[in-house]
Amino acid sequence: MPSTLALSLPVKGAQFTPAVIERRPLRDNDVRIDIRYCGICHTDLHFGHDDWGGTFFPLVPGHEITGTVAEVGDAVTRFAVGDRVGVGCMVNSCGKCVPCTSGEEQYCTEGFVKTYSDRDHDGTVTLGGYSRTIVVADHFVLRIPDALELAGAAPLLCAGVTVYSPLRRWQAGPGKNVGVLGMGGLGHLGVKIAAAMGAEVTLFSRSPEKKEDALRFGAAHFVDTRESGELAELAGHFDLLVNTVPAVLDVDAHLGLLGLGGTLVNVGAPSDPIVSYNVFSLLNSRRGIAGSTIGGIRETQEMLEFCAEHRIASEFEKISADRVTEAWKNISGVRYRYVIDIATLGTA
Amino acid sequence: MPSTLALSLPVKGAQFTPAVIERRPLRDNDVRIDIRYCGICHTDLHFGHDDWGGTFFPLVPGHEITGTVAEVGDAVTRFAVGDRVGVGCMVNSCGKCVPCTSGEEQYCTEGFVKTYSDRDHDGTVTLGGYSRTIVVADHFVLRIPDALELAGAAPLLCAGVTVYSPLRRWQAGPGKNVGVLGMGGLGHLGVKIAAAMGAEVTLFSRSPEKKEDALRFGAAHFVDTRESGELAELAGHFDLLVNTVPAVLDVDAHLGLLGLGGTLVNVGAPSDPIVSYNVFSLLNSRRGIAGSTIGGIRETQEMLEFCAEHRIASEFEKISADRVTEAWKNISGVRYRYVIDIATLGTA
Repeated sequence: MPSTLALSLPVKGAQFTPAVIERRPLRDNDVRIDIRYCGICHTDLHFGHDDWGGTFFPLVPGHEITGTVAEVGDAVTRFAVGDRVGVGCMVNSCGKCVPCTSGEEQYCTEGFVKTYSDRDHDGTVTLGGYSRTIVVADHFVLRIPDALELAGAAPLLCAGVTVYSPLRRWQAGPGKNVGVLGMGGLGHLGVKIAAAMGAEVTLFSRSPEKKEDALRFGAAHFVDTRESGELAELAGHFDLLVNTVPAVLDVDAHLGLLGLGGTLVNVGAPSDPIVSYNVFSLLNSRRGIAGSTIGGIRETQEMLEFCAEHRIASEFEKISADRVTEAWKNISGVRYRYVIDIATLGTA
Repeated sequence: MPSTLALSLPVKGAQFTPAVIERRPLRDNDVRIDIRYCGICHTDLHFGHDDWGGTFFPLVPGHEITGTVAEVGDAVTRFAVGDRVGVGCMVNSCGKCVPCTSGEEQYCTEGFVKTYSDRDHDGTVTLGGYSRTIVVADHFVLRIPDALELAGAAPLLCAGVTVYSPLRRWQAGPGKNVGVLGMGGLGHLGVKIAAAMGAEVTLFSRSPEKKEDALRFGAAHFVDTRESGELAELAGHFDLLVNTVPAVLDVDAHLGLLGLGGTLVNVGAPSDPIVSYNVFSLLNSRRGIAGSTIGGIRETQEMLEFCAEHRIASEFEKISADRVTEAWKNISGVRYRYVIDIATLGTA
């Protein structure tokens, strides 16, 4: 088996240690990627801490991967050695169900195979992008447009498409008032993308020090949610709210921000997933609450083209591999994504 | 002031007593209606019991009204004496906001004026349809098609449009799997209307004795929700669920019934409006939860024409005015709506 070097968590609660892992020999439709950058997503921490149970240890996290093609299988025609590519949250799916055949692999009825901590169809456990190389079936490999730098593009593969997909589906665009709740990795890309789509964007945050950034990213308005009365003043104002806040939300207060037929879309993965609301908050203006999970492969490619066209990338702080444990501890302090420079990981 | 006879609840917890009430003198755009039938809606009981606070007593409930035009104001051109008409849940709205001007008065940003227990724009308190006559601005008067009997049509004015509106909006029709949760006044009309729209309808109920009726009303399937395992077997099957159940629902279990992009729509008014759910239930298949409140005036008229075309009316038990207190006590036992024969109320 070809081996490679990775950052591994041997057991829950352990520290990252460099470890040699194996990648499968290339199949006909496989692409082997030399990973250049990997973003640190909050979901990585949830798995590392086994917050939802079922994490496979040893764990190699990472699903915001960019790099270059090192080798392709015999049947691969869409990629060649040297191509700039990326991998997001999915590395396999059944390929046959209605969601899969309609390009929405993220809703595969059998469950898509996650890039790490999942059981692939061949029985192996997937290992993610905190490593030097990865082997992925070509269907799940994205092309990184030339206009995007590989480091700033990495977080687009998860955070970017997670906000892009609901903004497209719920038709953010000119004449629409879109609110983004929270400005971390997802939220800051939500502001950039919604603004680029032409919507009037309001950022809701508990961190007034982020106001300047929000306006720079394209927000027209900034609301400090710690100021009482701010939410009441904006009652009924919004067509769409994209909630990127991992904490428990006052659902009713935020539903009150929505106008007729407006929708509150939850994205990302909360620590405490249970929320409560008052049915009347929905009844009163035909409002809705919805959830959205990343995006399909076709949509992820579309998002990358959109970002290239609008010169949108993630804000990031590049770190070396030996700083990942520290970065995890400071995850809520980063502006706005840690990206691991995989070259600093050394070689096996 | 013209007076009329009504069934009135003097204070919370009292019994209905016949009382003489006043109706306003006819304005130019007013229609005076001789009420023939009035349905008993569960909402009437919520107001009578002051479940949500703020009920105006003395209370005259009733917002499922049918009858004939007795007199019209000078500016009324759409109605003439003798016309068969109806009044639903609304008797006024601002008429200027975006919802009002787009025919969605039920979402008037100032709040529509309810047919009873509400403060009208002239400062008077509205009194509903448990009475001999009512005076209503012509915009809020519906035409009852000839094919509909006045008694069976009365519940369409609230219960009918409450289910019709979300079925239309979320596109119930051929090829769609629609679930109706609960079969009372709303649910039984939901089954009839969804089936007439061409959807494959499944009724979910805790009352297996209603199965025969459900199939007769057009349901293709009946699910006894008390049978464990029934919900799990239908996981991912539905495009739309219309929840008419006033009790607290296991939201997560029901969201699991929805396929990709499916929506659980709450209609009607629950006793306990607070519900909880797990965000992952929405994230996993881009599902949504929404609310819907009655329907606009234009849509209510459209619903009446649809019901006339498809020969849909409410199942009802006709009762005399002296049996209303008893009917309220047995509200969950009726098949499927009590309709008061207003002629039995006597005259003032």
